[in-house]
Amino acid sequence: MTALVERSAKAVAAPGTTVVAVSPEMGPESIESHYDEALSVPGLLTEIASGEVSGVDGYVVACFGDPGLDAARELARGPVAGIAEAAMRTAAYLGRGFTVVTTLSRTRGRTWELAERYGMRGLCRGVHACDIPVLELERDPGALDVVTAACARAVEEDEADAVVLGCAGMTDWAPAISAAIGVPVVDGVQSAVLTVQALVEMGLRTGKRDEFADPLPKRYTGLLRDFGH
Amino acid sequence: MTALVERSAKAVAAPGTTVVAVSPEMGPESIESHYDEALSVPGLLTEIASGEVSGVDGYVVACFGDPGLDAARELARGPVAGIAEAAMRTAAYLGRGFTVVTTLSRTRGRTWELAERYGMRGLCRGVHACDIPVLELERDPGALDVVTAACARAVEEDEADAVVLGCAGMTDWAPAISAAIGVPVVDGVQSAVLTVQALVEMGLRTGKRDEFADPLPKRYTGLLRDFGH
Amino acid sequence: MTALVERSAKAVAAPGTTVVAVSPEMGPESIESHYDEALSVPGLLTEIASGEVSGVDGYVVACFGDPGLDAARELARGPVAGIAEAAMRTAAYLGRGFTVVTTLSRTRGRTWELAERYGMRGLCRGVHACDIPVLELERDPGALDVVTAACARAVEEDEADAVVLGCAGMTDWAPAISAAIGVPVVDGVQSAVLTVQALVEMGLRTGKRDEFADPLPKRYTGLLRDFGH
Amino acid sequence: MTALVERSAKAVAAPGTTVVAVSPEMGPESIESHYDEALSVPGLLTEIASGEVSGVDGYVVACFGDPGLDAARELARGPVAGIAEAAMRTAAYLGRGFTVVTTLSRTRGRTWELAERYGMRGLCRGVHACDIPVLELERDPGALDVVTAACARAVEEDEADAVVLGCAGMTDWAPAISAAIGVPVVDGVQSAVLTVQALVEMGLRTGKRDEFADPLPKRYTGLLRDFGH
Amino acid sequence: MTALVERSAKAVAAPGTTVVAVSPEMGPESIESHYDEALSVPGLLTEIASGEVSGVDGYVVACFGDPGLDAARELARGPVAGIAEAAMRTAAYLGRGFTVVTTLSRTRGRTWELAERYGMRGLCRGVHACDIPVLELERDPGALDVVTAACARAVEEDEADAVVLGCAGMTDWAPAISAAIGVPVVDGVQSAVLTVQALVEMGLRTGKRDEFADPLPKRYTGLLRDFGH
Amino acid sequence: MTALVERSAKAVAAPGTTVVAVSPEMGPESIESHYDEALSVPGLLTEIASGEVSGVDGYVVACFGDPGLDAARELARGPVAGIAEAAMRTAAYLGRGFTVVTTLSRTRGRTWELAERYGMRGLCRGVHACDIPVLELERDPGALDVVTAACARAVEEDEADAVVLGCAGMTDWAPAISAAIGVPVVDGVQSAVLTVQALVEMGLRTGKRDEFADPLPKRYTGLLRDFGH
Repeated sequence: MTALVERSAKAVAAPGTTVVAVSPEMGPESIESHYDEALSVPGLLTEIASGEVSGVDGYVVACFGDPGLDAARELARGPVAGIAEAAMRTAAYLGRGFTVVTTLSRTRGRTWELAERYGMRGLCRGVHACDIPVLELERDPGALDVVTAACARAVEEDEADAVVLGCAGMTDWAPAISAAIGVPVVDGVQSAVLTVQALVEMGLRTGKRDEFADPLPKRYTGLLRDFGH
Repeated sequence: MTALVERSAKAVAAPGTTVVAVSPEMGPESIESHYDEALSVPGLLTEIASGEVSGVDGYVVACFGDPGLDAARELARGPVAGIAEAAMRTAAYLGRGFTVVTTLSRTRGRTWELAERYGMRGLCRGVHACDIPVLELERDPGALDVVTAACARAVEEDEADAVVLGCAGMTDWAPAISAAIGVPVVDGVQSAVLTVQALVEMGLRTGKRDEFADPLPKRYTGLLRDFGH
Repeated sequence: MTALVERSAKAVAAPGTTVVAVSPEMGPESIESHYDEALSVPGLLTEIASGEVSGVDGYVVACFGDPGLDAARELARGPVAGIAEAAMRTAAYLGRGFTVVTTLSRTRGRTWELAERYGMRGLCRGVHACDIPVLELERDPGALDVVTAACARAVEEDEADAVVLGCAGMTDWAPAISAAIGVPVVDGVQSAVLTVQALVEMGLRTGKRDEFADPLPKRYTGLLRDFGH
Repeated sequence: MTALVERSAKAVAAPGTTVVAVSPEMGPESIESHYDEALSVPGLLTEIASGEVSGVDGYVVACFGDPGLDAARELARGPVAGIAEAAMRTAAYLGRGFTVVTTLSRTRGRTWELAERYGMRGLCRGVHACDIPVLELERDPGALDVVTAACARAVEEDEADAVVLGCAGMTDWAPAISAAIGVPVVDGVQSAVLTVQALVEMGLRTGKRDEFADPLPKRYTGLLRDFGH
Repeated sequence: MTALVERSAKAVAAPGTTVVAVSPEMGPESIESHYDEALSVPGLLTEIASGEVSGVDGYVVACFGDPGLDAARELARGPVAGIAEAAMRTAAYLGRGFTVVTTLSRTRGRTWELAERYGMRGLCRGVHACDIPVLELERDPGALDVVTAACARAVEEDEADAVVLGCAGMTDWAPAISAAIGVPVVDGVQSAVLTVQALVEMGLRTGKRDEFADPLPKRYTGLLRDFGH
Repeated sequence: MTALVERSAKAVAAPGTTVVAVSPEMGPESIESHYDEALSVPGLLTEIASGEVSGVDGYVVACFGDPGLDAARELARGPVAGIAEAAMRTAAYLGRGFTVVTTLSRTRGRTWELAERYGMRGLCRGVHACDIPVLELERDPGALDVVTAACARAVEEDEADAVVLGCAGMTDWAPAISAAIGVPVVDGVQSAVLTVQALVEMGLRTGKRDEFADPLPKRYTGLLRDFGH
């Protein structure tokens, strides 16, 4: 999936933008629960710490639960965007309301929580599951058809002006689904890449005066000792 | 001010993006009330109608009241962004809350209304006036200092992570103010240009299945007869 | 439709109240989109400017999208009410929730936006279209039956205590529909006329200390030059 | 205070409207707490039951806490309005935000609760106490000056377009205060009388299909046995 | 029903906690409307006044409409909890959303109002009636089955993580319904008893600095004269 | 601090309740940022996994940021409460609004986020920092005085009925501060312990039908491999 995400990101990035896609060395093989999210964050932060050393300008968190986004903003000098955040904010430009189609039913609560957090409660009209596990999106040849049908149903049910795809694993499907159902379909990976690129272009980065200031230097014990900074 | 907006837009647009800044032939000389906004919209729609003929890919409405945005979305094939909308959504990536510094006190109500409409009521912590009329921003050599001071006060009072500049006439001041106050400062013109550029790059346009479908063909009488389509 | 609105308004106005119904000389023949709304406003403001000269005490904007309401409040000395605003606030006295039945599906988004603006998001339980264009309401002999059936369905679906009719063209149907479905049915034209009459009776007018102060004198160019004041 | 309320109501009622002001036989001498409100309701309902027998067309609950409003709506055939409800909805026509000036500090929480209930949380910018007990409003010759000053401060602090007077005992002060501070001042008694008059004129009454249907016939014991119906 | 409530309360109270269940001498035989609620409050307050004399540490208002809760908080020295309040706050710990199953359809509006008041609008996903009058819950041998089925339907329809039982008369059914439908089921009586017990254990009582201070001493006339304090 | 928390918890727990306080082996020495929170969660989940093996009935997450709460609810069979959640819900019983006094300024954003999540946005009137780092609460002999003064100021400024202490390290200060300022003061540790005890007493646990079902079995790589289940 990392290769897929990188391909999709590079397809829209400007010529002068270098895209590097990495998958944390530690963490779950896919993220489908609060538990998975929680365990994915230390690995994510390790990658960001590493990016800070190598001079990365900005970051995209390419999981639709936007795990660790606030912590990442504390750690990084440059801007950070989550793909749920970027997809929802992008869809907001396309009409009065959008609908989200995601993988497993159990992840819908997190999406609603993010919608609330991002001020999108009024614009997000529904969150729908297609009941395909994340890793099956790549493996199951029928997955695109199932997701397309779920998008069509979601648009009808929610009377939505646009669709948000609720998983990084669907990142290259937006054009095909949009062509099939006649409604704009937003992918979070591309949205987030173009958002971070725009923020860097404008010289904008996370405000550091209070909440998102650098983490305080302190002792971290046990397995996580390497995170000290 | 049109030249200023064009310069600012071109400064961030990608090499392949052509920026054309136009000022409607009819309308008020500046927009500082609901009345001014209302009278600016027919001229704005005329320009969009003209852009549709010449094949424009997307539009930015470069007035912080985002006048006529919904009508513009009905009329245009491609995406449309307002600068208040784009500035607020951009600022949302930079922390938990932003503050807006605008021109005249009487325009603050409209900004709050837009914040509500865009789901930004929770993120927008305050809207502050610097009491400089729009056209004086260019003419008054002390205007930048006044606005910078207003931004500093607004950040303190609202404990904001970022500032949004509430007028297209301030479009080239963001870097200077940010340098002076140590907080990210967002300009709506550049934000909107990069947003529309990103939407076009991703092939995204306004959803046309219901509310934002093309205007129905009908008879328009009197001074507005030229708007028939 | 102007004659119909005038008849309906006069049916409830107090003996001492003079009702004058006018239709702007410029603008669309009916209002069924954001585009139509935008183009209706200059003509509306012309009529208000004219009313100010002739000493009108207060105004009703008789289109359910309440176009130009804020601009009208700046321009007029006396109170101004929109029919969507008045209908929703009136319905709020009749129970815990109301439902709106309007003309075309595409206008529902604007109704929700107004409900939000007026603090009615919690009271407005649904907005339903009957898919009859505005001008057909008068021409189509079966329109009343269609709208009555839509009202009955809306009440059931939304478990509403009252119905709001979402178009000035339905202004004289409220009693018949209410008799047919056994639920109070609110017409915005009569609601707004009685509201403005009450505001005038109490000596209340728009607060003019900031946002709704008179428009600033300035130059308006092109077709709109006549609006200068 | 009953005589005062009656005088104020009659000053705005239409010629054909008969206003009858009554004060319940049982209950507290003034209402300045939740406890007082609760104990005022049985007496209020007795008066409404009596009004139903004598054919009253509609009711105003003339206490700014709107006590027993929902119960009154179940009991009465015709419309019922509270003065807080009517004052807030009336003030909503006069600008983007109003402020409330009331008697004792402890009653402010109830006002906020009502504002929330009526959808006025966004329009109500503040609730201020003048710390004069209800019964002192009539007795204290300096009360009007104190309340006027409180209104002026509230408008400045809340940047409000209008003021709502938060007690029936202030019902005849609106014109004097408005003249003194240059801002529209809304009295709930007159607002509610004109609202109920308008509802009756339009043939509108509380929706009775579910929540506000007549109370179910049942046994009431103890002191309240007379309320059986 | 009083015996039932006492039994249920004692089943969870700690060994050191004395539970006394009383039914007011005056008031309706059951509470199924705003009217019933209003008439139940004086009797409720009499009991609390009596409890204050005898040294009660805290109170539960055991009717799902939480009648008189604010007045009770003014009158009592110790903490007071309503069963709707306690049930909803308890259910909030069990997942992202709950659904309420209550008795008569007409009481649902009050439940929504309480949900809003308690900050539970986002957590309360639905309120469903089983159409069994309060007093029939005890008498009708099939009532448990009807309510269980209603709970199962409500969970499916609202995709809820938990159920709240919306009547004190259902207080001993939670375990059986939970076992039948596999979802946690919350009873307000037990929730409120444990809440009040916890508040007393921690030495917490209603804040008395402003709104909930003791009622002011004043004259109460008529049937309610005994409430003077 | 773990010993302090345990002492405070045991002071209110019922005789039959066994309280075990543990501090995760891995993680930061204190939690004062999103980064710290994120790194504390794997250690927290390890402890819960261990508790599940040893048959723990319910859990309290004793950090005011409620880190990992949703993940913990997936992992645990029994109920889980966070101390911010429990403190806020407890304070809600004590009046119309509370204020929070916490440690460092930068943590206030997280508190607002939790307040929103728990439906407490309307009840939480302010979040105030006393600018004492978490670990200094125990070491600094003047800390109690500083926090007491901050509580007094917060109550005045926010006109709050109650105070919530925003750090587990303040758990034994509530009685002293309450005595000093005359307002109820809520400690989250005791609130959460009594909440979990009550939930267990009533046989209530997290709803497991969808979002909070057990984590799916999957492969976890790197440092986190021990979390597989």
